[in-house]
Amino acid sequence: MDAVIIAIGSEMLTPQKVDTNSLYLTDQLNSRGVEVVAKMVVGDDRRRLVAAMRDSLAQADLLLLSGGLGPTEDDVTRDAVAELAGRKLIYSTAAEEQIVARFRQINRPMAEINKRQAFVIDGAEILPNERGTAPGQWLSWNGKHIVLLPGPPRELKGLWEAQCVARLDAILPVQVIRTRQYRVAGMGESDLDQLIAPLYRDYLNPATTILAALGDIQIHLRARCETAEEAEALLAKVGDPIAEVLGDRIYSRDGAPLEATVGSMLRDRALTIAVSESVTGGMLAERLTSVPGSSDYFVGGFLTYSYAAKTRLLGVDPDLLQEHRAVSEPVAEAMARATVELTGAHIGVAITGLAGPSQGDEREPVGTVYIALCSGESCHVRRMQMAGERQRIRTLATQTALDLIRRHMLKHATQ
Amino acid sequence: MDAVIIAIGSEMLTPQKVDTNSLYLTDQLNSRGVEVVAKMVVGDDRRRLVAAMRDSLAQADLLLLSGGLGPTEDDVTRDAVAELAGRKLIYSTAAEEQIVARFRQINRPMAEINKRQAFVIDGAEILPNERGTAPGQWLSWNGKHIVLLPGPPRELKGLWEAQCVARLDAILPVQVIRTRQYRVAGMGESDLDQLIAPLYRDYLNPATTILAALGDIQIHLRARCETAEEAEALLAKVGDPIAEVLGDRIYSRDGAPLEATVGSMLRDRALTIAVSESVTGGMLAERLTSVPGSSDYFVGGFLTYSYAAKTRLLGVDPDLLQEHRAVSEPVAEAMARATVELTGAHIGVAITGLAGPSQGDEREPVGTVYIALCSGESCHVRRMQMAGERQRIRTLATQTALDLIRRHMLKHATQ
Repeated sequence: MDAVIIAIGSEMLTPQKVDTNSLYLTDQLNSRGVEVVAKMVVGDDRRRLVAAMRDSLAQADLLLLSGGLGPTEDDVTRDAVAELAGRKLIYSTAAEEQIVARFRQINRPMAEINKRQAFVIDGAEILPNERGTAPGQWLSWNGKHIVLLPGPPRELKGLWEAQCVARLDAILPVQVIRTRQYRVAGMGESDLDQLIAPLYRDYLNPATTILAALGDIQIHLRARCETAEEAEALLAKVGDPIAEVLGDRIYSRDGAPLEATVGSMLRDRALTIAVSESVTGGMLAERLTSVPGSSDYFVGGFLTYSYAAKTRLLGVDPDLLQEHRAVSEPVAEAMARATVELTGAHIGVAITGLAGPSQGDEREPVGTVYIALCSGESCHVRRMQMAGERQRIRTLATQTALDLIRRHMLKHATQ
Repeated sequence: MDAVIIAIGSEMLTPQKVDTNSLYLTDQLNSRGVEVVAKMVVGDDRRRLVAAMRDSLAQADLLLLSGGLGPTEDDVTRDAVAELAGRKLIYSTAAEEQIVARFRQINRPMAEINKRQAFVIDGAEILPNERGTAPGQWLSWNGKHIVLLPGPPRELKGLWEAQCVARLDAILPVQVIRTRQYRVAGMGESDLDQLIAPLYRDYLNPATTILAALGDIQIHLRARCETAEEAEALLAKVGDPIAEVLGDRIYSRDGAPLEATVGSMLRDRALTIAVSESVTGGMLAERLTSVPGSSDYFVGGFLTYSYAAKTRLLGVDPDLLQEHRAVSEPVAEAMARATVELTGAHIGVAITGLAGPSQGDEREPVGTVYIALCSGESCHVRRMQMAGERQRIRTLATQTALDLIRRHMLKHATQ
């Protein structure tokens, strides 16, 4: 089956904005063997949208639309699909009830205008939206399928998973897909690819995809076969050697991000952790606490952005700061030690550094970061030197800190 | 004049890849008063590309194509345009000379296959490519203009600037574009639209676009006129009433995010700030410190995720915690007061709440958040009740806290 994806919204025709929903949807479709043959962005213009949909249906049997389901005059998707299919829009009390329930859930009265969102194309199925007010719709018609999805990525993903995956599987030929994934921290993309490319590049099945983010690489293997056994055998043939080469650089095999892996390891070992952040300003703690249940192991810590905060909150010796300056190994260690002492956590991590754009010098240029990890009496400090702008340096420092925590626990299995 | 942009290349129909050339081209076109009415990505498929171009020319007079000009069988753009226009491809010795010269420049012999790149659509102008081997082409035909551009962004930009800008200006009416934008915190999209839709919906010029993120809405106005004065007058006519209705809900008129606005206000008033975060776990501090120069006003603070951290680090009275529990108005206030006392900052902000997914109950369900702001002796606590999952609640709480800080400074102009 072939598909076309259309994003609707004039804002996505500006120089600043990119349609990212289509990337998620492409991944979802490809993993089920559906090919995306074209994608497009159309403004909030009913006539143009009708024309684009008509052209797309000449090329593909599945048409995914994202956006244009809001309550305002701008939101033309419902009307355009109705016009294309020669169907009426019908006011659905079932859809209205869902919208009212959603407003009740977020404790706000429903504005009169939101009633527009309860209009459904005659014959379409309503797809409830658990994360927003605009329900989706699924219209099957003349052997074609048109799916109306909300524009906000959070809503689109939630609705896709809950409502569309099963509907799509029901209209696709039977095929078994099995996947594996490895997540790797602390390696650059080209280093990694040099290491593993010889192991996967001769295989089309499983298909291997490498997704690289800052300090974080995902390797996805996807096998498509007639039986699960065949698919698993292919995954083992290509995946096992990759896993062997990468060893403990792999931090997750189930897609969990690094902070979740670290969290599970802390919980399994009944360890607690506290942090003190200067240059990262809360980013490490934010990532640790983004994981549900993190209160099991995350105690808290200190935001010591200024010199004064380092002395007043953590009790770092002013002479030490004077002598070595804030971005130094002794200060990082003193911060981590104080974190353990003051919070009572088993592990204390401290990050101090310079993210720029100004304030660096020859001794400690912008991009210098010290990460200290203390546990009991032992303390280890790592110096990093990174290039790039502020958020890049902060993100890499945070990622490295999480990986240090993970490796510390791997090394000290008994702790 | 209206334009459509088509990117050609199957790799841009994968889940990893986004067409960024269209952003650059949109910016170039918009700044000359040309509106992009649609954009699309088509794979390396001649039949589909011809269909897409035919549909696009029904909507627009200018068609920009990027990619598909390479030397291999996959590169179908030249052939597709020739087929669409019913023209022949002619071997151009002028184009060949440019390609040969390019290879000489990079000290490599020209492969025989590269001769394919010297085929030019009959009647098209050749656009020399200083940064690559594929020359561009400009075909004017039946009042329509089709421009063939190379896919690599560096080549596309170089060729656009050197060859296309002047050609485009020659066919355009004189036109000036002026823009305005407002960013608004603390309102839902539909509430905002109900308020301002009557003020903009009757105007096509300026065009109004509303972009909504979590707790953060951007309103963009774009006026197109013959003179800058006319454009500014149109912006004032529509924009001024919108600004009046929204009043101090507008936090930025230059695109700056809320944390940057708050930072500038703190700096202007020579105020310092410290925070204590429980449920948001560092997210507020992370946003405040994401702004370069934030060390001018951000002191630091406390991550008090656990009960123990609230008492040990902030000295919150255990009896108070026992009586009211951690997610309560008195505890939020005690946290903010202690933050001011312990850090010496002018303003102390504390956030405590429940982000779920578990742990809520009837008294304080998941999504309950208290935000306290203390300044000198005064302290103000706001209770919020939010729906949705963990990161949504944390993000909205952080956004609300930043807006409370901003409003506090607006109210207390002298502080």
